[in-house]
Amino acid sequence: MPGLRAPSDYSGEPPRHPALKINAKQPFNAEPPRAALVKSYVTPIDMFYKRNHGPVPIVDNINSYRVSIGGLVKEPKQLSMDEIRSLPKYEVMATLQCAGNRRTAMSKQKTVRGVGWDVSAIGNGLWGGAKLADVLELIGIPKLTATTPLGAKHVEFVSVDRCKEENGGPYKASIPLRQATNPEADVLLAYEMNGEVLNRDHGYPLRVVVPGVIGARSVKWLDSINIVEEECQGFFMQKDYKMFPPSINWDNIVWSERRPQMDFPVQSAICSLEDVDFVKQGRITVNGYAVSGGGRGIERVDVSTDGGKTWVEAERYQRSGSQYVPEVNGDKWAWVLFKVEIDVSDRAEIVVKAVDSAAGVQPATVEEIWNLRGILNTSWHRVRVTNSLRAPVSQL
Amino acid sequence: MPGLRAPSDYSGEPPRHPALKINAKQPFNAEPPRAALVKSYVTPIDMFYKRNHGPVPIVDNINSYRVSIGGLVKEPKQLSMDEIRSLPKYEVMATLQCAGNRRTAMSKQKTVRGVGWDVSAIGNGLWGGAKLADVLELIGIPKLTATTPLGAKHVEFVSVDRCKEENGGPYKASIPLRQATNPEADVLLAYEMNGEVLNRDHGYPLRVVVPGVIGARSVKWLDSINIVEEECQGFFMQKDYKMFPPSINWDNIVWSERRPQMDFPVQSAICSLEDVDFVKQGRITVNGYAVSGGGRGIERVDVSTDGGKTWVEAERYQRSGSQYVPEVNGDKWAWVLFKVEIDVSDRAEIVVKAVDSAAGVQPATVEEIWNLRGILNTSWHRVRVTNSLRAPVSQL
Repeated sequence: MPGLRAPSDYSGEPPRHPALKINAKQPFNAEPPRAALVKSYVTPIDMFYKRNHGPVPIVDNINSYRVSIGGLVKEPKQLSMDEIRSLPKYEVMATLQCAGNRRTAMSKQKTVRGVGWDVSAIGNGLWGGAKLADVLELIGIPKLTATTPLGAKHVEFVSVDRCKEENGGPYKASIPLRQATNPEADVLLAYEMNGEVLNRDHGYPLRVVVPGVIGARSVKWLDSINIVEEECQGFFMQKDYKMFPPSINWDNIVWSERRPQMDFPVQSAICSLEDVDFVKQGRITVNGYAVSGGGRGIERVDVSTDGGKTWVEAERYQRSGSQYVPEVNGDKWAWVLFKVEIDVSDRAEIVVKAVDSAAGVQPATVEEIWNLRGILNTSWHRVRVTNSLRAPVSQL
Repeated sequence: MPGLRAPSDYSGEPPRHPALKINAKQPFNAEPPRAALVKSYVTPIDMFYKRNHGPVPIVDNINSYRVSIGGLVKEPKQLSMDEIRSLPKYEVMATLQCAGNRRTAMSKQKTVRGVGWDVSAIGNGLWGGAKLADVLELIGIPKLTATTPLGAKHVEFVSVDRCKEENGGPYKASIPLRQATNPEADVLLAYEMNGEVLNRDHGYPLRVVVPGVIGARSVKWLDSINIVEEECQGFFMQKDYKMFPPSINWDNIVWSERRPQMDFPVQSAICSLEDVDFVKQGRITVNGYAVSGGGRGIERVDVSTDGGKTWVEAERYQRSGSQYVPEVNGDKWAWVLFKVEIDVSDRAEIVVKAVDSAAGVQPATVEEIWNLRGILNTSWHRVRVTNSLRAPVSQL
């Protein structure tokens, strides 16, 4: 595609904030420190996790950039940025979460494959752009279409980036046409993040944002959109990001037996403490986030100081700028931040778990959901605190 | 409302199948034996659980029956059955589940209030009727409306039945206007069940069916529909069917702190065995159901014979008549039936749990989700089997 290209090496990477914890350098994968995440409801761009699969693409000439729309359509189209900007602009508050968030903790149970992430492969952004449903109307596919007369049922997004060779070409993913054409699903072709022009790490000049779904489907550096009969057959849809039972290992795996993960379940984490932390005995404030997929809101956040025997409910917040404002049926695609004051004694295991609006719960242990790819570790988040520097971690 | 009335006593109740287990006589609350549930994908009408809050209403004259549509509308309407039948007819396969399903098992942990139910307060029906979204268009509310110019945001359904006095008049519930006007939410005003005219126990002449949501919102014997600004303030929305944390008891409950439960989480149960059963040592077939709310499909059903240490995956089925047919992205609002052959020895604890398409899981124990009203017991379903009649249950 003219205007946008993927370099073959990492010499042209954009600058990044030095506070990010780098989990992989090439391709660049990094997350902010926990504490940075709960400083604001909308995650600052430079503190938003970066999850790339190759060198960051480069725009040589924004005026010649076009996104192609083809596949099972009567009249394929190439849209310029001006044409996309001329469609009604929507701003959607949506939390993106990498399916591998909290993978490192899952690996402690039994090793899993994939980039190691702490609890910060997640961020909340205000995404600005055109609704995909409006874009698809331009090529003659009406709102609320599940199947077109030509038999199309899925919408495939293809990036311009170069993934590793074993991952088979550019990054791709698809979503059902039913979701793509439903204006209430709020799927965007986004050109803005937090009111600014999308930056290079996050998909400049144009990316997909699929709210309520694992980040892997929100394709960056968009090259083309294909209207297709079958779900995308790319590596990251068919050979990755699927949920397997704990009994499946690398010897008995059959990828085709499972569906690509889309929607994610209820999740929460403590961000004001590290997994093993030293605190002064007494009253402390615990902060963190809770979120669920599919537009399900958070109904409750429970915090325990005795490893899960008894619980207190945390306060929840949304839509804060610098101020916290109580959350009431707020941004359906976005996380809530929570805050609770608790008393800790000598040693304590602090635990958080959330309940979503569908009464969905997090599993108490990693064992219940361990999977060889280490995706969606949504087990209760446990942090051990002590006020004695002499206590070895293993005794906590 | 002319044509339809609620009697003041129980002398005019309809006949019911003698195999139903009656959990309360007046009002009538009954469920089928477990084994009956898994005999067919579509639950026969006489084996479908009955959950009434008063005497069953009586239609004196179907020709004079009207459902009123009022509230924040410019032109209130009264629709006859002929007018509703003249709208496009849809058939939606949807599982209805009482929020109190499996309450009896929750009470074993610590007593809860409410009608006791085993695992069969659930059934799968083929519902025929008009889409609520089409009906609302008749009064000038277009598809995909979240708020009307008059400020309406909810749709309230009012039954004609007489609940107990403390429950404050006729049975009522509401759903968000956004859901009511979304044709993909498949909310029906149903006049047929499994291809037959709706029978009296299930809401004749007209009921609401809200797929993917607890049964309490699918109001039967519909008298009126109100287009309103606020969520319904009726007893069963505000003082019942809400999810509270385990720490809340009847002394510290504040009903207004929680939202009415709508969508339900992933659920499963074994139906071919009672909770403590005597079986011959060797190979047995385990059957049951799994379902999730919100249109989330079932991704996997796991069965354990060692209390949850190791698991095997069960086969899943949908759309069977008398024949089982493998389920492939099938009826999104409906359950799947499952089947697995397992070897049992002397004594075993057989456990089932399901995973939904959002990777939602069931909690391992009742403790995690115990709530004073005993709703949504979705903990792993455990059945103990033995082949020795001498083993006391307490030792299993």
